[in-house]
Amino acid sequence: MKDFFKVADVDQVLEYVSLLQTVKTEEIPTENTLWRILAEDIIADDDLPSFPRSTMDGYAVKASSTFGASDENPAYLNITGHIAMGESPLFSLKQGEAAKISTGGMLPDGADSVIMIEHTETLDENTIEIYKSTAPGHNIIEKGEDFLKGSIMLAKGSKIRPQETGLLAAFGRKKVRVYKKPVIGIISTGDEVVPISESPLSGQIRDINAYTLSGQVKEAGGIPLTFGIVKDNYENLYDVCMKALLQSDMVLISGGSSVGVRDYTIEVLSDLPDSEIIVHGISISPGKPTILARSGKKTLWGIPGHVVSAMVVFTVLVKPFIEKISGNNLQRKIPAVSAKLSRNIASAQGRTDYIRVRLTEKEGALWAEPVLGKSGLINTMVKADGLIKIGKNTEGLLKGTMVEVLFQ
Amino acid sequence: MKDFFKVADVDQVLEYVSLLQTVKTEEIPTENTLWRILAEDIIADDDLPSFPRSTMDGYAVKASSTFGASDENPAYLNITGHIAMGESPLFSLKQGEAAKISTGGMLPDGADSVIMIEHTETLDENTIEIYKSTAPGHNIIEKGEDFLKGSIMLAKGSKIRPQETGLLAAFGRKKVRVYKKPVIGIISTGDEVVPISESPLSGQIRDINAYTLSGQVKEAGGIPLTFGIVKDNYENLYDVCMKALLQSDMVLISGGSSVGVRDYTIEVLSDLPDSEIIVHGISISPGKPTILARSGKKTLWGIPGHVVSAMVVFTVLVKPFIEKISGNNLQRKIPAVSAKLSRNIASAQGRTDYIRVRLTEKEGALWAEPVLGKSGLINTMVKADGLIKIGKNTEGLLKGTMVEVLFQ
Repeated sequence: MKDFFKVADVDQVLEYVSLLQTVKTEEIPTENTLWRILAEDIIADDDLPSFPRSTMDGYAVKASSTFGASDENPAYLNITGHIAMGESPLFSLKQGEAAKISTGGMLPDGADSVIMIEHTETLDENTIEIYKSTAPGHNIIEKGEDFLKGSIMLAKGSKIRPQETGLLAAFGRKKVRVYKKPVIGIISTGDEVVPISESPLSGQIRDINAYTLSGQVKEAGGIPLTFGIVKDNYENLYDVCMKALLQSDMVLISGGSSVGVRDYTIEVLSDLPDSEIIVHGISISPGKPTILARSGKKTLWGIPGHVVSAMVVFTVLVKPFIEKISGNNLQRKIPAVSAKLSRNIASAQGRTDYIRVRLTEKEGALWAEPVLGKSGLINTMVKADGLIKIGKNTEGLLKGTMVEVLFQ
Repeated sequence: MKDFFKVADVDQVLEYVSLLQTVKTEEIPTENTLWRILAEDIIADDDLPSFPRSTMDGYAVKASSTFGASDENPAYLNITGHIAMGESPLFSLKQGEAAKISTGGMLPDGADSVIMIEHTETLDENTIEIYKSTAPGHNIIEKGEDFLKGSIMLAKGSKIRPQETGLLAAFGRKKVRVYKKPVIGIISTGDEVVPISESPLSGQIRDINAYTLSGQVKEAGGIPLTFGIVKDNYENLYDVCMKALLQSDMVLISGGSSVGVRDYTIEVLSDLPDSEIIVHGISISPGKPTILARSGKKTLWGIPGHVVSAMVVFTVLVKPFIEKISGNNLQRKIPAVSAKLSRNIASAQGRTDYIRVRLTEKEGALWAEPVLGKSGLINTMVKADGLIKIGKNTEGLLKGTMVEVLFQ
């Protein structure tokens, strides 16, 4: 066993993220790409749109044919064509001419703008009156105005939202290369823990963390893979860790990481092939007895058994690790919501505290109301909307302080 | 055909939400409930925890045995037992006695608190010294402290987050009744629109909206079901609408809703069985030519063909309709993020404007920078992080105004 009493603070743990490697990539159909992470730069292979389009129902014209037109002094133009949707007009427009066009229609050669139908009147089938002048480029989208051929339209590492799927569709990308979803192994430990299908005897408790952690893994873009409950026994935990390492990109072990008599987690993590205990203990509350280790290039976490501690450690620490191995390096961060703290909160210096809060609106302001309670109580997480952080150099926060609310 | 020129404002359209009925329910395994909507109240069928538990490694005691203990004047207690994890202790504690216990262990009868191991010293195998007094209830979770038997622990209409899956697990709920995900039919219309697998000819454009709307439906908790591209033709559109109504809970028709020559959408929507045009035209920008209709109890939308208009109409109007039929009526609203507007924005009175914005941090503040551009340009949506609303009674907003940013 190696030396493993390395207590770190939150920022030190997060620095380790930069050393992680991403998972492999795969090619998937564009319709399944929502929230996936692009593993290639997407280059525009054509102009978008590939032809000038009208953005209005009206008449395609040379703008100069309308200069000076007004209600009192309308311009008269000859209708020389109708543009059918989805077709390329076979004629070109000259000065004094107009062609009927619908929204999305292709402009004929010679036309540089569109007059809205509301600003025209049909005199006969060959002539319109125009009551307003237009300018070149008005009511049209130019060829390549959305994206120019050869430009990078989406960068590797972007998270794909609905608009990005639309952009891939616009360029006819039926398939696209994305990072695989990392598989996150979840092991529950503890002699007192029983599967949810069992009725716990006195002294026993059902396996909550496998469910909360699986949900958090899904929210973080991973695939949870549960390995059941391991009783507090070195050999069993070693064997299940080896199995989980084979089948997963990262492993979470919940329970068994406090310094107790039957605490085999640290021993097993130390004894895994090519292993290193990176951090043992983090100056965070709740969540202090967290362990960060690696075996080869895979990360393993020992997470506290209390449900609230486990969820906070996941949100603050594990999630950024999962995002990094997922290739998600161009994340659009949704900024934190600001709210006023509803009461004074004390905190120990030298430790980063995460307080569960509930959001309420009062007197036109948003208030963050601490949901106090022990870290073994799941009801505090169910009542909470998010977390606020009290930095390690702060002794506490006063009522009325503006705080940033982190959502899980 | 019925009278259908009913222009409404955004709030009037949203009032209609209260008339909608929810979809049916289904029973699913707890591990698949993330983000689903509960269709039953969940009642605690037992106390949680069902026994008093220790939250620390240490010794279970009667608190009164420790009163007055300090470094100078320690209390001496007899060790009368060890509590094994997951087992119910077979002995009870008397004054002056202590039993070794681990985090999560069950307190023996007679014990009312736990002394942390750090505040004790073992003198011999039968005796400990205690350096600190404790109080009843300290370092333990009482029976029923998390949830009391008979209480409603989760209410019908709640959205299930990871913590709620954990709570269901804690009570041994293997299955739970949730609302079905509503199926949202998506029909693209327009003679110029071709499937993404085709190379568009001049004048043609690929079907972007089927992709962006499918992604938005998924984000809103629905299941998108696409019905392909319908050319501008009354009979085809009628037939596809009838098919979509049979297979979906709501139908979105994109394109073809502006007042154009080949605009059959309004006619078809008027002629469907037991149909009503509820709204034709909404005072919103972008998105004015939106149609809201019903056939029987199902809602149909005519959504503009421009990608930005379609996405804004979805976010502002269609999404609340989907959430309502999904049973999602106890939504925890994630409040909007506040930011400073980076430039003046003009707006027409009598119309609600939605402006795409990009968020940037400058001088310690969060700024919302308008992404300007025509509603036919998808690049504006790709650059944007969210939307800001300019109310219908506002002529515009000045640089530096605090605005709320809505995420899609």
